[in-house]
Amino acid sequence: MMLMRVNMRLVLVVLCGAVLLATLYWGHCGDISLRPTVSLLSESQTALSEIECSINGEYSVSCRRDRDQVYLPFSFIHKYFEIYGKITATDGVEKFEWSHSYSKVYHPKKKYDPRGTFTTFENYNVEVRDRVKCISGIEGVPVSTQWEPRGFFYPTQIAQFGLAHYSKNLTEPEPRIRVIDDGDKVLENWIVSQDALMSRELDPELKANVIRFTTTDQPASQVRARLNISQDFVLSMDLMLKPNSSVTVILQNKDKKETVYLHYVTSTQLIYAQEDHIYYGVGLEQKWRRLTRDLIIDMQKGWALQDRPKRKSPRNKFKVSGLALSGAGSVGNVRVSSSEHMFHFFSAARWLVSSQRADGGWPVPARRRLAPRVPDLMPGWHSAMSQGHAISLLSRAYHRSGDSRYLRAARRALGPLDRPPDKGGVRALFMNRYVWYEEYPTKPPIFVLNGFIYTLLGLYDLHYTEGGRAASPAKDMFEAGMLSLKTLLPLFDTGSGSFYDLRHFTLGASPNIARWDYHATHVNQLYLLAGLDPDPVLLATARRWEGYMQGRRAAHN
Amino acid sequence: MMLMRVNMRLVLVVLCGAVLLATLYWGHCGDISLRPTVSLLSESQTALSEIECSINGEYSVSCRRDRDQVYLPFSFIHKYFEIYGKITATDGVEKFEWSHSYSKVYHPKKKYDPRGTFTTFENYNVEVRDRVKCISGIEGVPVSTQWEPRGFFYPTQIAQFGLAHYSKNLTEPEPRIRVIDDGDKVLENWIVSQDALMSRELDPELKANVIRFTTTDQPASQVRARLNISQDFVLSMDLMLKPNSSVTVILQNKDKKETVYLHYVTSTQLIYAQEDHIYYGVGLEQKWRRLTRDLIIDMQKGWALQDRPKRKSPRNKFKVSGLALSGAGSVGNVRVSSSEHMFHFFSAARWLVSSQRADGGWPVPARRRLAPRVPDLMPGWHSAMSQGHAISLLSRAYHRSGDSRYLRAARRALGPLDRPPDKGGVRALFMNRYVWYEEYPTKPPIFVLNGFIYTLLGLYDLHYTEGGRAASPAKDMFEAGMLSLKTLLPLFDTGSGSFYDLRHFTLGASPNIARWDYHATHVNQLYLLAGLDPDPVLLATARRWEGYMQGRRAAHN
Repeated sequence: MMLMRVNMRLVLVVLCGAVLLATLYWGHCGDISLRPTVSLLSESQTALSEIECSINGEYSVSCRRDRDQVYLPFSFIHKYFEIYGKITATDGVEKFEWSHSYSKVYHPKKKYDPRGTFTTFENYNVEVRDRVKCISGIEGVPVSTQWEPRGFFYPTQIAQFGLAHYSKNLTEPEPRIRVIDDGDKVLENWIVSQDALMSRELDPELKANVIRFTTTDQPASQVRARLNISQDFVLSMDLMLKPNSSVTVILQNKDKKETVYLHYVTSTQLIYAQEDHIYYGVGLEQKWRRLTRDLIIDMQKGWALQDRPKRKSPRNKFKVSGLALSGAGSVGNVRVSSSEHMFHFFSAARWLVSSQRADGGWPVPARRRLAPRVPDLMPGWHSAMSQGHAISLLSRAYHRSGDSRYLRAARRALGPLDRPPDKGGVRALFMNRYVWYEEYPTKPPIFVLNGFIYTLLGLYDLHYTEGGRAASPAKDMFEAGMLSLKTLLPLFDTGSGSFYDLRHFTLGASPNIARWDYHATHVNQLYLLAGLDPDPVLLATARRWEGYMQGRRAAHN
Repeated sequence: MMLMRVNMRLVLVVLCGAVLLATLYWGHCGDISLRPTVSLLSESQTALSEIECSINGEYSVSCRRDRDQVYLPFSFIHKYFEIYGKITATDGVEKFEWSHSYSKVYHPKKKYDPRGTFTTFENYNVEVRDRVKCISGIEGVPVSTQWEPRGFFYPTQIAQFGLAHYSKNLTEPEPRIRVIDDGDKVLENWIVSQDALMSRELDPELKANVIRFTTTDQPASQVRARLNISQDFVLSMDLMLKPNSSVTVILQNKDKKETVYLHYVTSTQLIYAQEDHIYYGVGLEQKWRRLTRDLIIDMQKGWALQDRPKRKSPRNKFKVSGLALSGAGSVGNVRVSSSEHMFHFFSAARWLVSSQRADGGWPVPARRRLAPRVPDLMPGWHSAMSQGHAISLLSRAYHRSGDSRYLRAARRALGPLDRPPDKGGVRALFMNRYVWYEEYPTKPPIFVLNGFIYTLLGLYDLHYTEGGRAASPAKDMFEAGMLSLKTLLPLFDTGSGSFYDLRHFTLGASPNIARWDYHATHVNQLYLLAGLDPDPVLLATARRWEGYMQGRRAAHN
């Protein structure tokens, strides 16, 4: 799994200039503590002399000295050990906060429930990630640029998007919903330009009153609503458009004169942006669909497309000031909410069902380079993590909807997990013996840890959702995987952190250490599994690994 | 292998008192850089304010601050990261030397030669180690107290003793030899007390003139030699003693009035000491043997037995001032040398031949506790390292002497290496697949790295000494072991050091990180093997691991 540093809690303060300083001070190493000026300092003040610190005989750093104590600059410590630090102030008292890691561990409060939140995904916000190009206007799922700048549907990312929204739906308070026009109790006072037409009709399919509109080719020909909505930005409506039609949302910056136009147009183009006009294709099909858009996300992705800098908290600075319909079509049940998590969740579920291949897989259409001397994964590869996440999502979709298509899709998804890579699957064996579901099914395998554990969770979720039967393929595969995990987990222990994978073993290369957010993911995953399996290696490893994040280390002899 | 920190190059300066200081300075955090007194300091002097450093939110350390730069006390860094440091002075300029590790890597200058030095053992000085109780007066080999305070013959230690002397013999300059009495060209003027007898006779066995002596029971009845020998302290002589006889060496401190008596007595007691009288049993056999003793070592072990503190450089402070013969016996070819390396080497070789059991092993007569939850090794266990070191030593003994008994013993020593622990051997398998010669054949195995590599060297030495035949048991076992090593070596990589063993894998326990001297041993061993096997994993790992000793780390993602 490729993570963004979503949990980064502590801002890294790089104390710039210090190395330059060190150079400037070179050689002025007089011991000032012996000079008369010092006596003018009061007791709580200390005048420190400078002393050159020779680092492993390789280079020097300017340090300070007070008798037998030598003081080293944090700018050096930060670079040498990758420790994080910043000066903070509480009630005017400044303090330096030293942080061994920048990530956070979540201790589960109760046993993992396959119907509940997915691990710690309620903290994820997939769509804000830079590697998400935008949310597709047709499918309502993210498009990834992770290994392919043109953008592609990455099943892992889509499932994470869905699982994050599913989890947020459970943990966040009920959304605020403001109905703009429901054709019934709340009716917006639409402004119809002279050459345009608008009518309200009962739609036989939706069994609700909808707005039918027609405008001319003239740009000013519109059906418009003046709005003034702050704080909430998830717009949704039932929509059916004829060709060359669009829905435009007008956003205004409350502080300065700035207007942004989000156009949802009948097109198959994913996204297009020119200055303040951002276009999303919503497809050409002339049938009812529900359009649900996070307007702020849509605006930011349009900016990102133009390489404009990311802005801080635009949700506080903008308001929805209007809505305009052009061309011809029908619109109903228009509302703005603080969130529409379940809509996003089911968008992902629907995408998974409709995109699944006959072999049960969601092939990844991007080439993936893993490591030198390892052949690239060519477009069409399967990922155990995609399969596992998809199973977790589809199990929940079945649980929530009762729609057995989701369950069948989840079961089919086991296929690639049970096949070796040369048969289009992801199943590797460690030393011909221990099953490993490969997030990246390279040859040789590299045994990525976090993606494997996520896959195990998928298997667990499906087994649970199927009613926890005594025997089932999902159960067998889960148990085989747990045996591998409990056996091989110690090989991921560095004594001060964890390895992301075992490429050092299979390639004989330098180890690939997990950066702190992946390490924290490992720890979170292990705490979760320790609630499902009493083997002490899980809990003991979780605790030891959590300690590594506070600078503790395994003992040396 | 259990190492002493023989390679410790840098003295660790624990900057004591700093933590106390931190406590005293608590809360005096006025920013003195803003106070007028500061202007009195010249430019190269800086007055730093104090700032509290909160370490991972767990505890605090008093630091210094100069604008945006924060300075941390080395006393804290030392404890937190186990970094070593000391203030040194060159031409009056003081400097702080930061050392990531305290050990040293030896880059081999040429390809390893089984007839040459054994790895880096020319730097070893086995007999000075605290865990060596003394050198046996009968066998001339060290007695270990490593896991058994009463002392026992530890084959690994005995082989290391022999191999160190073999290596020193090749690397050190020719020894200085001072003949005291050879019965021919150099004759000492022995002082014979009134009631004692001394004669010179041609001994038919030695085919040399020897001294025959008889004294009475009176303490003053002696045959004595007055000596005045500084600098060199290895005494040797041909000796045959009747019961209740002894050779006494008198050592005098040149600085102060202090006399130490080393008594070599007809007894089977290993060592006995009372104040300045130290006794070594040389056995009861009435036949010629050569006694060769490092007098300084013998003196220090006598002191250690009485828990007297170890003294620094006694070789510079003492001189040999006399030699006294009591009882009855014969003595010949008496000399004092700077070293007698080959004598010590062959003492070890003879011990190995005479102590080897029918199954080819040298059982270790001490109980060994390895780790919690692992059954202790009970007296009589075999060590792959003992077997391997013994083979390395016996191969060299055969090379130097041509005596085929040594070669036969080396071949027999393969036996335990090729048997599993439940059949009295040391052969483990990693995941039922990769052979590992276990330094400590525990159940489950723990896969100690350095002892395994030493065993491989033994196998290589024997194969080479046998003429490098196309097929031989030693060759097969070496190659199987090298395959294991090259396969499993990455599992010992922590990304910033190395694991001593794989107990974390077999026990699911916390990893056992190799301290720096063991890590340096790993690196030395890998450089050596990289000269024998072109597989890039050996050289690449050696280089990466050497970098870890300068603070470099494997990359994280």
